[in-house]
Amino acid sequence: MIRVTVWNENLHEREIPEIKRVYPQGIHGCIKEFLSKESNLEVTTVTLDMPGQGLPRELLEKTDVLIWWSHALHHEVTDENAQMVAEFVRRGMGFIALHSSHMCKPLRLLLGTTMTLKWKDDDSERLFVTCPSHPIAKGIPEHFDLENEEMYGEYFDIPKPDDVVFTGWFKGGYAFRSGVTFTRGNGKIFYFQPGHESFPIYYNETIQKIITNAVNWAKGDVLLAERDNVMVTD
Amino acid sequence: MIRVTVWNENLHEREIPEIKRVYPQGIHGCIKEFLSKESNLEVTTVTLDMPGQGLPRELLEKTDVLIWWSHALHHEVTDENAQMVAEFVRRGMGFIALHSSHMCKPLRLLLGTTMTLKWKDDDSERLFVTCPSHPIAKGIPEHFDLENEEMYGEYFDIPKPDDVVFTGWFKGGYAFRSGVTFTRGNGKIFYFQPGHESFPIYYNETIQKIITNAVNWAKGDVLLAERDNVMVTD
Amino acid sequence: MIRVTVWNENLHEREIPEIKRVYPQGIHGCIKEFLSKESNLEVTTVTLDMPGQGLPRELLEKTDVLIWWSHALHHEVTDENAQMVAEFVRRGMGFIALHSSHMCKPLRLLLGTTMTLKWKDDDSERLFVTCPSHPIAKGIPEHFDLENEEMYGEYFDIPKPDDVVFTGWFKGGYAFRSGVTFTRGNGKIFYFQPGHESFPIYYNETIQKIITNAVNWAKGDVLLAERDNVMVTD
Amino acid sequence: MIRVTVWNENLHEREIPEIKRVYPQGIHGCIKEFLSKESNLEVTTVTLDMPGQGLPRELLEKTDVLIWWSHALHHEVTDENAQMVAEFVRRGMGFIALHSSHMCKPLRLLLGTTMTLKWKDDDSERLFVTCPSHPIAKGIPEHFDLENEEMYGEYFDIPKPDDVVFTGWFKGGYAFRSGVTFTRGNGKIFYFQPGHESFPIYYNETIQKIITNAVNWAKGDVLLAERDNVMVTD
Repeated sequence: MIRVTVWNENLHEREIPEIKRVYPQGIHGCIKEFLSKESNLEVTTVTLDMPGQGLPRELLEKTDVLIWWSHALHHEVTDENAQMVAEFVRRGMGFIALHSSHMCKPLRLLLGTTMTLKWKDDDSERLFVTCPSHPIAKGIPEHFDLENEEMYGEYFDIPKPDDVVFTGWFKGGYAFRSGVTFTRGNGKIFYFQPGHESFPIYYNETIQKIITNAVNWAKGDVLLAERDNVMVTD
Repeated sequence: MIRVTVWNENLHEREIPEIKRVYPQGIHGCIKEFLSKESNLEVTTVTLDMPGQGLPRELLEKTDVLIWWSHALHHEVTDENAQMVAEFVRRGMGFIALHSSHMCKPLRLLLGTTMTLKWKDDDSERLFVTCPSHPIAKGIPEHFDLENEEMYGEYFDIPKPDDVVFTGWFKGGYAFRSGVTFTRGNGKIFYFQPGHESFPIYYNETIQKIITNAVNWAKGDVLLAERDNVMVTD
Repeated sequence: MIRVTVWNENLHEREIPEIKRVYPQGIHGCIKEFLSKESNLEVTTVTLDMPGQGLPRELLEKTDVLIWWSHALHHEVTDENAQMVAEFVRRGMGFIALHSSHMCKPLRLLLGTTMTLKWKDDDSERLFVTCPSHPIAKGIPEHFDLENEEMYGEYFDIPKPDDVVFTGWFKGGYAFRSGVTFTRGNGKIFYFQPGHESFPIYYNETIQKIITNAVNWAKGDVLLAERDNVMVTD
Repeated sequence: MIRVTVWNENLHEREIPEIKRVYPQGIHGCIKEFLSKESNLEVTTVTLDMPGQGLPRELLEKTDVLIWWSHALHHEVTDENAQMVAEFVRRGMGFIALHSSHMCKPLRLLLGTTMTLKWKDDDSERLFVTCPSHPIAKGIPEHFDLENEEMYGEYFDIPKPDDVVFTGWFKGGYAFRSGVTFTRGNGKIFYFQPGHESFPIYYNETIQKIITNAVNWAKGDVLLAERDNVMVTD
């Protein structure tokens, strides 16, 4: 059983009627719904407005993979909570950051770059599998289309990824490394670009399959103690 | 002084009038012309129809960087010559393969994959710098356009590159890793997608700057003896 | 069910009494024995002296992961068979090359370098896990010792690996990238240094666990058709 | 002209007589001395006890490559200064972290891992070149010895390096990725393990050549503005 926690800032879905219409249960609710169909996944959702910002240490101790969606409220996540999430990732918790979460604090702490990019509203994206042997690409067609998606374009200021599983092509004239993996300590990280709140991206079955694959891939074997320098005597 | 040898199969430029109009001195002649403006480069051109297929061993012994363009006649290069080029690359000779040379024998021997891709005539390309700190990207704008270029699209069956210096976006709906580097033994390799024979790509100043940068980057320090297993006694 | 084929040149075990004492059923027999304990593995063994050099195409069509051990008879494997194995790897068959197989023809075709190294008889090795999140390292201690093992030392002329899962330390003064992974096309490749024929390395339980992990990791999802260039019309 | 700034915490050299005997002008003084012999380098030294902790913004604006040595006083560097150094690296300033600086704040901010390792006093190290085509390895023998050096051993908790230029073998039974490169934004980073304060490591000519090579390699072309997200309209 893989224990998945979906964390969402849950702002746009509550405050903007058009977004609420797309995601009446919030983006976290939609993600929980499709992941819960998998018999090996146990899904919990939390949001920024919950006690402890939805990130109590006891929850992370019991989380194999943390999925994260944030956008307008990155800065409200406390530095302590961001550091704690980063620490859990290094100890072995999987971490999947979606769309605008490229700028979320835990990811920036783990990767060390600015995570900045080019962007534009209302575009159309085609995603190409550029690492076909990767478990996250299992069962995904060579390329597939998202008729409506916000454009994210290069230069995307990330460290060199372990793998660029998906490369995005945007009709308006930009390309993007849309699905990239990283390792930090014992933790596996997947950043996945699709998922602008105004489009029903997370209802798309190919997107759902990718996120499901990513959960299975990111799950660590064991949650280590935080590493420290060790003087050896042998 | 960097000794550059430009090898070209030189078929289309001789046999097809429209191509001849674009490159009256052959693609090799055009490349020699712009490289020769650099005071630190000494440029030689050779073609497939010359003795020894333009690849005498003595020439390679005195070549720091070999630039290669082939398309319709990949198969005419003998296996022995292809192996010899691959050997020189491993010993430290730089190798720059242009456009349709993705399928040339030496590159396939060095990289081990099929090097296959999707393609389509007559498209328009925008290239993005996706590794801005790389010496090959020095002085190149964040992105630049080629109004006419043949489309090469993913999936491009290459090993994971050391760096994806340029990512190509094609108007017709494809993305491509258009500028990629590899290391084999002591040799540095750069594959660069632009350069379809029917368009004046190698007259483009940005393209010229990239190829010039690549020559300076690919130059090895010393041509080693071919490596062998060594039993040690110390 | 993962279909594993173990290929062995099977020379030393037949001709040298001291080696026969270590591996009376051949190295392939020993590997089959421990892999067969896994309920998800179906193991076949073949040897160089069998018809078709033990590599009939129909067998490879039904092989998910091919394990290879060769040393003195690399050159006897025909170029056609080596090319066929490489082709199957690119199509998605996993490939695990053990010890002296660093110089086997299929691996050289897939990786493109000389695969040469330093070596010395009779040494002692300690292996360190240098990529702890990798599936091949699952359940393996931080480091473990092989009291007797032939030394393989740097410089090991390989392309940059996807991951260096194990780094070897040899008492006599050498270090080595002892467990390295590569991807070629859809195929996953693991080279693992331990396994000199005169020592009972493949009876070591940690070694057995690593090879078992590698089989589970290397298994592809589907055997593709050989890739070709494709002209697109969409 | 490359402008190099050498920053040193300069504690052990002032307070411990045996260390003072090794480095009477401080480690920074020793490094400045050998770098100053290079006609293309302009070297400045600063120490933690200087105003602004030796890191005034105006100095970094005029620094092409920052060399860093710290050990006991990592924590005294303010978070603001550490963030500023990391920002300058991302903007294009080269960064060379020596020995115990694996735990310095700027490096941890840039790399995102714990940077922890195993260690032991008084050992003997042999360094192997494991990326012979890298500019930092230019002119360095295949392997060379440091008779006395503190042991640093795996597992070294770093992100996957761009290149492992040097791999260290320690007599006492450990191996280590002793010379590793990373890229963050436009900045090149080199971490180099040798340099324990009680041994005259930085007087070793091979070590001096490596650090000199690293300075030449790490120099960026231009100091960018800090990157930000950019909405595009073209």
